[in-house]
Amino acid sequence: MAQITIENITDVFEKSIEADMDPRLRELLTGLVRHLHDFARETRLTHDEWFAAMMFLTRAGAMTDDKRNEFVLIADVLGIESLVDAITHDAQGDETESAVLGPFYREGAPVKGFDDTISMRGALDGETARIRGRVVDRNGEPIAGATLDVWETARNGMYEQQDPDQPDMNLRGLFETAADGTYSIRCVRPVSYPIPFDGPAGEVLAAMGRHPNRPGHIHMIVRKDGYQSLVSQLYDRSDPYLSSDAVYAVKGSLVVDFEAGGDGVEYTVTHNVVLKSST
Amino acid sequence: MAQITIENITDVFEKSIEADMDPRLRELLTGLVRHLHDFARETRLTHDEWFAAMMFLTRAGAMTDDKRNEFVLIADVLGIESLVDAITHDAQGDETESAVLGPFYREGAPVKGFDDTISMRGALDGETARIRGRVVDRNGEPIAGATLDVWETARNGMYEQQDPDQPDMNLRGLFETAADGTYSIRCVRPVSYPIPFDGPAGEVLAAMGRHPNRPGHIHMIVRKDGYQSLVSQLYDRSDPYLSSDAVYAVKGSLVVDFEAGGDGVEYTVTHNVVLKSST
Repeated sequence: MAQITIENITDVFEKSIEADMDPRLRELLTGLVRHLHDFARETRLTHDEWFAAMMFLTRAGAMTDDKRNEFVLIADVLGIESLVDAITHDAQGDETESAVLGPFYREGAPVKGFDDTISMRGALDGETARIRGRVVDRNGEPIAGATLDVWETARNGMYEQQDPDQPDMNLRGLFETAADGTYSIRCVRPVSYPIPFDGPAGEVLAAMGRHPNRPGHIHMIVRKDGYQSLVSQLYDRSDPYLSSDAVYAVKGSLVVDFEAGGDGVEYTVTHNVVLKSST
Repeated sequence: MAQITIENITDVFEKSIEADMDPRLRELLTGLVRHLHDFARETRLTHDEWFAAMMFLTRAGAMTDDKRNEFVLIADVLGIESLVDAITHDAQGDETESAVLGPFYREGAPVKGFDDTISMRGALDGETARIRGRVVDRNGEPIAGATLDVWETARNGMYEQQDPDQPDMNLRGLFETAADGTYSIRCVRPVSYPIPFDGPAGEVLAAMGRHPNRPGHIHMIVRKDGYQSLVSQLYDRSDPYLSSDAVYAVKGSLVVDFEAGGDGVEYTVTHNVVLKSST
């Protein structure tokens, strides 16, 4: 009979796995358990501290429903989603960098024409802006017919599905590049907003002495057959929370300038997108 | 502005903490996050795999209520509760070893006299047994007036609060040692039983190819002013699941022999308890 000790329990755990376990699942399970056990050993984690963690997860479970996943928020404030996004979409060359998808994406955004706006409410939605540029491959050749699926909050910091005052699909749109790879999107200048902080993720932020804000950003998924889909975000260089994003998602290459003035809009952004071939 | 990368995100996280965070909480948070980040880096954890983990926790939250905590069960099948118990009660000398409390302890067990039984239903509860011995200090001196708070399942593998057919507080009792440190408890021979396996903890066990059974055991908390309270369990040496406990809690020093025969009972166990001074 195995005598369980502080030192051997991790080996006992690994040896208790049957041989035919899925290899990737085994790698993940044993890797996670080894790190959690090492964490407990290194910190001399007490039973009371462990139990407090179980109650923390229990509170997270009680707050989680179809509209809000507190576990995702907790992972976000610990930098975990940003890290797995970076690992998954590790930019090896000069292609545009990815960013986290976030919980507010919806499929089926309205199809828009070149330079149409995604704002349905004018100034209620925010200051007007245009984002324009080209979608190209890694050789700089234009990609025609690429789609840009974009979404952002209104000036109150809420996405349309969070806000009963916004029309369905407000501030969402699906654009397409022209034959020369160019696109033009009219939208609003994004604003910073807090992630929900009235639950366990907020407890973590409060304990760390951190604010719950994300810098203003606009989400974008760029797709084209033959290329890897790009899930990304653009950040406003003047945002006060750029260096203290609550979810550690800002990448320098995705920070853009909202320049004053433009043809009928208050601000203009130029942003070229480089897609990587999927072959 | 900090440029977040796969390599620097853990340092960025640690530097984002305000200076006045509680030191122990900081040690635990940064230690946990460093291990989780290292785990993600080492396994090249993908965003899809991370999201599957979030859905796993979400299912655990949906199954958790006042009577069942799925997070505790998950920690148990990963060996985590057994490990933190061992760390918390690390036996440094010859005192009796601890074991996990488990989720079925209740305060307020009926007070029993020397050699009383905790079984209210005779053979319905199980085969009769007696556990007897002495409670002593580390010099072997008897400890009079120590209490032994014991609980176990009936032969159907259920604790009284799980089972509408058992009387309230069945198979629970609070005993006291005599002037010479001796105690005698009449009970039933414990049986193996499965932990709840119809949720995420059961998914882990199934993926590992493991059964959900715990070997038969009787729980015991021994208390006496001036000594460290001992939360422990006794295991039956003949149990088929002794070497494959679903929650990795068996310690060799807590395995006892249920010897046939005795004064009016079917089995007798002799078990001496050594308490450590709390000073």
